[in-house]
This record gives sequence, structure tokens and C-alpha cells, in this order.
Amino acid sequence: MQESEYLHSVEFTVRDYECDLQGVVNNANYQHYLEHARHELLISKGINFAQLHEEGLDLIVTKVEIEYKYPLRSRDRFEVKTNIRREGNIRLVFLQDIYSLPDMKLVIRSKITCAATKNGKPVFPGEVIHKLGLN
Amino acid sequence: MQESEYLHSVEFTVRDYECDLQGVVNNANYQHYLEHARHELLISKGINFAQLHEEGLDLIVTKVEIEYKYPLRSRDRFEVKTNIRREGNIRLVFLQDIYSLPDMKLVIRSKITCAATKNGKPVFPGEVIHKLGLN
Amino acid sequence: MQESEYLHSVEFTVRDYECDLQGVVNNANYQHYLEHARHELLISKGINFAQLHEEGLDLIVTKVEIEYKYPLRSRDRFEVKTNIRREGNIRLVFLQDIYSLPDMKLVIRSKITCAATKNGKPVFPGEVIHKLGLN
Amino acid sequence: MQESEYLHSVEFTVRDYECDLQGVVNNANYQHYLEHARHELLISKGINFAQLHEEGLDLIVTKVEIEYKYPLRSRDRFEVKTNIRREGNIRLVFLQDIYSLPDMKLVIRSKITCAATKNGKPVFPGEVIHKLGLN
Repeated sequence: MQESEYLHSVEFTVRDYECDLQGVVNNANYQHYLEHARHELLISKGINFAQLHEEGLDLIVTKVEIEYKYPLRSRDRFEVKTNIRREGNIRLVFLQDIYSLPDMKLVIRSKITCAATKNGKPVFPGEVIHKLGLN
Repeated sequence: MQESEYLHSVEFTVRDYECDLQGVVNNANYQHYLEHARHELLISKGINFAQLHEEGLDLIVTKVEIEYKYPLRSRDRFEVKTNIRREGNIRLVFLQDIYSLPDMKLVIRSKITCAATKNGKPVFPGEVIHKLGLN
Repeated sequence: MQESEYLHSVEFTVRDYECDLQGVVNNANYQHYLEHARHELLISKGINFAQLHEEGLDLIVTKVEIEYKYPLRSRDRFEVKTNIRREGNIRLVFLQDIYSLPDMKLVIRSKITCAATKNGKPVFPGEVIHKLGLN
Repeated sequence: MQESEYLHSVEFTVRDYECDLQGVVNNANYQHYLEHARHELLISKGINFAQLHEEGLDLIVTKVEIEYKYPLRSRDRFEVKTNIRREGNIRLVFLQDIYSLPDMKLVIRSKITCAATKNGKPVFPGEVIHKLGLN
């Protein structure tokens, strides 16, 4: 994907506690980075994840596909770059790639599929879709 | 403290992802172990932490004092041993020590002070106190 | 997959700190469960993950595919069940499913692809393959 | 402590995954914030925590005292402010307070005591002390 084609980008620095005994960022922590980047993207569009939850609407992850290309280490700087697209009526797909900084080496390529539920039942998240400009 | 004097004990095994790049359990993770052991103690007395929260009553930690004596490493087995006492009308104090297994080396000595709040305001947690046999 | 066809199984209980503000286990934490179950499987075959690392041999995750079917909540008990197969010369694939207990509801279906590296370079992990009975 | 008297300050934003089912940052995660702030302070003085570890010198936490004054929630901004002083020949004490932003409400007051070990044995960390200007 061309860099210019991403919708949103957040910069991070690896914190030492995110590394495990192999001396690299633990695999699970990349999901934390990706989640935080998605929530930042939503906020930038006027959508507050925690507030939605209190109103009974949850965006939930239904599928995660992550390819690990290159490991991040202590204090590495990196960027999570995200695109988003609609899939059918209830699914949102976030295409999220991580690049190390400043050399822009590909660290992770991922596809995160989400759905919306209201009080536990699948719903069409009309307002979210609208705010994301996907309708 | 004599081993026999503890009120409650839970056994754990270190999971690799809990270790950091120094090859030992990250300091913050001991607080996770201590929290889980407190919640297990509460459950054993018929007190469900998550359910209390949904009823508006939160047990919150107001002070943590932890002495780190000996580090745990990948796959170490250990025990969190807990005593509990009341301090004044609204504070509960958990004295929690961690010992490695099977050699019973002292890993951590800690004192965790808690208070109760109802919808954000300090309250006397009468039922919790009663179930813990501290009144 | 028939339950009887799994190679290995580990039982867990959700710890409260693993739940996030949605009141369910945070998505990233399932990767922690899966990782711990893989390391337990390896140990049961005489393969110590942390020790391998100290000898310069790292088993690294190259791809993660997780389908989230049903959320786990505070104190839920569950089982991680694992199968393992070889893919070509350097890849190991772990098929890992999570079931809630005691009702055996499917929580997660996952496929974790791993490779071996020695001092950062891809290698054929002959001894690991042998101990796993995959040669 | 007067704000002007702090040696070092780092700004953070709460990430949603750091909150637990009570809807506030989990207590253990404050230790992560404090650790990251200490490592940032060390880096600002030319001391790299991960690199020290590879050279056999570990700065280890021997005691943690944290008073929790006010809880942080989803997306709150905050500052970790740190002072440092020497205690005897082998102990470094980090006085670390957290303030919410922009209202500067006191969130945490903490005292973190550290010691240095070389290959597991206590040592006087001469170079660290010197770089911190504490000799």
C-alpha cells in the first residue's frame, strides 16, 4: 500500500515493559498498539469508544490477522498506519500496518475485522458508519 | 510471620509473557498476582469483586507498599499468602507475601491498603466486613 | 475439530485484571493465553522456551489468525486446546482453540504460525521437530 | 513538592486497554507508567536501561510505595514528574508523582527505591551515579 493512501497514523515509542525475555516486543502487545491506534482514529472522527460502551454500543473485534515481519525492540520508534473499509452491513475492517521510524521498515501487516453490538446483539452502527464517511 | 498464620493462599506459575527483557517477572506484574490473590480470597468468603462493581460498590486500593526480595523467573512456581485486618472504619489492609515453591524463599512482602466507595464516595463496606469476619 | 483430536490442553481462570472497560477479556490477552498454552505444550515435550532463547534459538511467531466467537468475562474458566503440525521445512503451525468451561462453548479459533531463528537467521529446528514427533 | 522542583517530566495519555472492568486505569499499570518515566529520565542523562542489562548491570527495584489519590480514566492526559536522590552507597530513590492534565490534580504520590546489581550481586553503580550528577 502506498503510504499516502493511509487514512490515519499514530506514532509510538516502545516502552521497556512491553518487551519480553526474548528482548523484543511481546507479540500480544502489538494488538494493544493496534487497538490504541483504532481508538485514536475513531476519536479523530468524533467517536469515543469508552463513551459508546457506556451507551450500550460496543465495537467488538471478530477477527484478527497479523503478519509479523520485523521485531521492535527497546525504545524503537514506530508508526501505526490505518485504513478502514466497510464489509457488508455490520462489519468494519481496519487495515493496519506498523512501520519502524525513521527507516519505515515494515514491522506488521494486519487486518482487524470488527462488528457492532448493542446490549450484546449485532446491530448496524449507523452513526459510526456515518461519522467515518463510509455510507 | 509464621506460615500457619496466613488466612489464604493461592498458587501460581510464572508465565513467560510476564517476564521482561531483564529475564525476570516485571515489577508491575507482582501487583497483578497480588490483586488476583485478593479477589480469590474475597470469592472464598462469598464476595465477588466484579459483581460488587456492577452494584456500584468498589473496593479501591489507596496505598501499596511492596518490598522486592527475590526475583521470579520463567516458569517458577510460587504462592501468594494473604492476611487481612481492619484499619478504622473504612480501610481494609491486606498483608500479602509471596514465596517461591517448593523452597519457600521470600519473594515479596507487601501491605495493600483498600477503601470502599459507593458511586465514587467513601462508604463503610458493612457487608464485606461482615463476610470477612472482621466486625 | 473433534475434542479427542487435540494434542494438548491447559485450563485457565480469567483474572479480573485481564478484563477491560467493556467488562470482557481484552483481545490482546487471548494471545497471552495462547502463548502460555504453547509453551506448556513445548515443556510437556521437553522443550523449554526460555532456555532455547538463552542458547540462541528463538521460536518466533510469524503469523496470527484469531476468530473471536464468544467473550470471556471475570472469573470464567476455560481451556486452551492445541494441535500442532509442520508446514514445509521451517514453519510450525499451532491450531489453538479456546472453549469455556464447563459448557464447552467455542470462544476462539486460532492458527498461529511459527518459525525458528538462530541468532536472528532462519533455521531448521531439528531437535524441536524431533521432540514434537513431527519428523 | 513545588512543581518547579522536579528534575524530569513525561506526558502520557491513558490508553483504553490500560483500564480494567472498574473503568479506571488498573493499579498495576501505574507502575508501568512510573517505570517508563524512570527509563526516560535515565535516557535523558545518557543511561540506557536495556543496554546496561546487556552489559550485565541491572538497576532493580527493591521497594515500591504508591499512594493512589485520584483515578485516571479512558483518554485522560497526565504527567509523571520525577525527582531522584541517593540513599547510602547503593540505593537510588525516585520520588515520582503523577498529575492529571490540564488541571494538575494529584493522581499518585510514589517513592521507588532501586539498587544496582552486576551479574546478580549488589554493586555501587559509579557511572550511573556520576551521569545523574549525584556524586
